[in-house]
Amino acid sequence: MGRVTERRKVLRIRDGVVSSRPDTLVAEEPLEIRLNGKPLAITMRTPGDDFALAAGFLVSEGVLGGQEDLQNIVYCAGATAGGTSRSSGAESGGGSNTYNIVDVKTAPGVVIPDITLERNVYTTSSCGLCGKASLDAVRTTARWPIADTPPVRVTPELLASLPDRLRAAQRVFDRTGGLHAAALFTEDGEPLDVREDVGRHNAVDKLVGRALQNGDLPLSRTILLVSGRASFELAQKAVMAGLPVLAAVSAPSSLAVDLAAETGLTLVGFLRGGSMNVYAGEDRIALRAEAAQG
Amino acid sequence: MGRVTERRKVLRIRDGVVSSRPDTLVAEEPLEIRLNGKPLAITMRTPGDDFALAAGFLVSEGVLGGQEDLQNIVYCAGATAGGTSRSSGAESGGGSNTYNIVDVKTAPGVVIPDITLERNVYTTSSCGLCGKASLDAVRTTARWPIADTPPVRVTPELLASLPDRLRAAQRVFDRTGGLHAAALFTEDGEPLDVREDVGRHNAVDKLVGRALQNGDLPLSRTILLVSGRASFELAQKAVMAGLPVLAAVSAPSSLAVDLAAETGLTLVGFLRGGSMNVYAGEDRIALRAEAAQG
Repeated sequence: MGRVTERRKVLRIRDGVVSSRPDTLVAEEPLEIRLNGKPLAITMRTPGDDFALAAGFLVSEGVLGGQEDLQNIVYCAGATAGGTSRSSGAESGGGSNTYNIVDVKTAPGVVIPDITLERNVYTTSSCGLCGKASLDAVRTTARWPIADTPPVRVTPELLASLPDRLRAAQRVFDRTGGLHAAALFTEDGEPLDVREDVGRHNAVDKLVGRALQNGDLPLSRTILLVSGRASFELAQKAVMAGLPVLAAVSAPSSLAVDLAAETGLTLVGFLRGGSMNVYAGEDRIALRAEAAQG
Repeated sequence: MGRVTERRKVLRIRDGVVSSRPDTLVAEEPLEIRLNGKPLAITMRTPGDDFALAAGFLVSEGVLGGQEDLQNIVYCAGATAGGTSRSSGAESGGGSNTYNIVDVKTAPGVVIPDITLERNVYTTSSCGLCGKASLDAVRTTARWPIADTPPVRVTPELLASLPDRLRAAQRVFDRTGGLHAAALFTEDGEPLDVREDVGRHNAVDKLVGRALQNGDLPLSRTILLVSGRASFELAQKAVMAGLPVLAAVSAPSSLAVDLAAETGLTLVGFLRGGSMNVYAGEDRIALRAEAAQG
């Protein structure tokens, strides 16, 4: 796409010494995702893999579950957001394509759930709006239970090796420092796919969307690694894709841990060096015979 | 509020040694923000400062500009999201308050802009939906130009000292590692306020909302420091609050830099140790006489 990074002039100050030099920045642009022609969401993302991003977003929303649910995805030529029509003219670009609006058309018969508010937090539970309601919503929306049969089993050593493998596979991060990364690995630690984006949730959506396009959902024998924190939203995306293991380099939130515990997701945090914390789904961690202390 | 952190049992693995111990996690819960009774947005946030979060969010959205625009903010007792009524019963809590829904009532005469899609990306520009349209939207929505008269002038040394001052003022970060922090400083580097949240944008909204409640908008003589990256969304929040200087510990995005350059915001990134990059608004950086090289 050629727009993953952009160059800008920057004033660099190092211990009082000032220099002017070009710097590489991560590109950020809005993407509007439409569902059957109707605007659904706008996300600020790093351009590239936009169809995968849209497809993965709709997996997380419970709209798409496989290739067969998808009719096609197109960029909207000359589209303006909000569904308003616009006369073509010099200023409007006369129908030109900005590559910032994609329309996802579902296959006939696909039932579209009611998606009204941002961040996919449903509020139908008896407690009004709370974390528990969010957990219930994911559980009732999830297409597949996490059903890895036989169960995926990973050693701490394998998990500890993943951040280095992610870094080796990253293409842009070292140049800009502004990207979040997400990677899929096999249960043997082999990298399957890496995506980078200015938004962590977008990177995961791109991975999941690509898997949908390839007919690889549910991702029942893979490990998802994210470069930063594990929020509820990321745990939700893992569950919705049928992933059994989510590992994060940094901390999880309370609600991410609760969701993992309720759905059977293995959630690993603070995966750094030879260390990690396992917050849920310990049964998939292959510990040595010396067993637990403390 | 007592819900900023939660305790969970965790399996800790350190170089092959396994132990079981309690761990402190950052709390994450959904908050629905209603505007004059109408659901507007749901954000996953760390509970606490919810009224400030809602007020700050509405400053960023261009709805509120000062105390006088605000009639009141209340938690919705027994409310269920989506405006549906619910019969009270054992399970529904019978009108109990979940503290996860707030309603912001504007003062009479306040004009509510059309806010329809998430992330506040407007699409009325002639180019359809693109970064330029996002910039234009902020420029036309901003209530105050960045008008620090006389201009705020900060030395690199002062900027370099801010991350340590932020860390000293943080209350939760060191315990969970799961929080983003944002802080306001005077132009002399004195800390004014620090907020922490599982979402970086929430931490900034809480700062800005508190400033609105205190009658301190626009924040024309303050410096905003954020613990992570500087996205378009954060630069937008700075501009909407009339802030002249945004400093980030990590990288900015291309669109954040573009917005800063167009609006006159000073944008500093990679603020670490004695080093930093100045991406826009260099005129507010007081350099020593030895001047620029390169």
